[in-house]
Amino acid sequence: MVTQYMESKVIAIIPGVHWSTLTSSRYILNFKGISYKIVAAEYYDIETTLKAVGMKPSGKRKDGSDLYTVPSIVDTNTGAKVSDSIKIAVYLEETYPNTPSIFPHNTAALHQAFFAYFNTSIAPIWSTILPIIPRILEDKAKEWYIELRSKTLGKPLAEANPVGEEREELFKNMREVFTTFDVFYSKNGGGEFIMGDTPGFADFMIGGVIQGLKVWGEESEEWKDFGTWDEGRWIQLLKRLEKYEGTLG
Amino acid sequence: MVTQYMESKVIAIIPGVHWSTLTSSRYILNFKGISYKIVAAEYYDIETTLKAVGMKPSGKRKDGSDLYTVPSIVDTNTGAKVSDSIKIAVYLEETYPNTPSIFPHNTAALHQAFFAYFNTSIAPIWSTILPIIPRILEDKAKEWYIELRSKTLGKPLAEANPVGEEREELFKNMREVFTTFDVFYSKNGGGEFIMGDTPGFADFMIGGVIQGLKVWGEESEEWKDFGTWDEGRWIQLLKRLEKYEGTLG
Repeated sequence: MVTQYMESKVIAIIPGVHWSTLTSSRYILNFKGISYKIVAAEYYDIETTLKAVGMKPSGKRKDGSDLYTVPSIVDTNTGAKVSDSIKIAVYLEETYPNTPSIFPHNTAALHQAFFAYFNTSIAPIWSTILPIIPRILEDKAKEWYIELRSKTLGKPLAEANPVGEEREELFKNMREVFTTFDVFYSKNGGGEFIMGDTPGFADFMIGGVIQGLKVWGEESEEWKDFGTWDEGRWIQLLKRLEKYEGTLG
Repeated sequence: MVTQYMESKVIAIIPGVHWSTLTSSRYILNFKGISYKIVAAEYYDIETTLKAVGMKPSGKRKDGSDLYTVPSIVDTNTGAKVSDSIKIAVYLEETYPNTPSIFPHNTAALHQAFFAYFNTSIAPIWSTILPIIPRILEDKAKEWYIELRSKTLGKPLAEANPVGEEREELFKNMREVFTTFDVFYSKNGGGEFIMGDTPGFADFMIGGVIQGLKVWGEESEEWKDFGTWDEGRWIQLLKRLEKYEGTLG
């Protein structure tokens, strides 16, 4: 397998914390053996940092203003600037065809649908993550984040975290959702990944989601409980993906 | 490719009408080149017919009584008796490994998740199909079917078919759902099927669903409109699958 190299910039959300779909892009860069460097920006600097390198907005906010998001990459080999973890994955696959494929045997459609199904189904779980992100931010970013999210939500961010019965119900539902996907995984003919022994797009993307759940705190009840779901499948998946994590430099 | 033969019985719902997931099982039998014969039973005879060959119930009704469903197969080569189109597909794949695979390259997990996602997403469309099934039944079956469904629904079956704005809204939503899956299909690297040029489980299952929509009537506005969705992708899919339809004997 030929290893391709490129100099690219991955804009990280939080230095030193493996958070969000950023991880999925790094998994894929490492899996493909594409060299890269990371530019880490605090929340309040994301827009400025991305604009400075000529990135286009990845979408619009509800109020109509431009939205800039991470992960984003700049590929100095081709001049391409790509935002959105799914688009980045597809871009890397198409641009570096001589690297290991994340969609082997023409499975791009199946992989992308699988992850969309997973991502849609587990979406409610983020209501337990977004309100506690300030915990892992430095002061200025914390203030910026709380103000932005509270504005979007129309109520103080701290009140958005479900509690009591609502929280129990949410976790019960989420556990069932994960089990649905555990059952699909169990049909993979053996091995840890969705196509058996070799990871692909869906595994990397789901790994990125699970990394995001670490915001609960690795010593939290939530994370410990989650570790027992589906006989530990999701934690094992993370462990199997560790070798593709690389380092945040 | 070795062609395997078995004598099996596929219990058809409606003689001469290609309806429901029955079609998907036939697609797969023909794709695999497994010879079979069809036993067709009217609705009111399904339970008796299946019990007579020793089939186990495929589930329970809401009232706790046993439920017998088609498609079901009896495989006289192995003695196996299998109900449920997904289980039949998996059974045939595992029992006849020397036939063309419906899960090539370890894609059983991806294919089954893809179809589950599709099937869950399009479920509301059956509210426009179930109430008009009596149209294609002979008198005794018609009476039996109307009585059973009305009892299950807690209202006359004829009133269950959405009309007016509710119907428009439903079709608008369903069109969007199909487009979601059209977009996934478009990522298949070219070709008509989800993995490109060769059909697999998800294509056969979705083909079976689309056959079910023909209950609207091939001259109906609904069917003609559906034919235009996603630049005719779904009708083209049926055409590409025609060679696996076989004949109802």
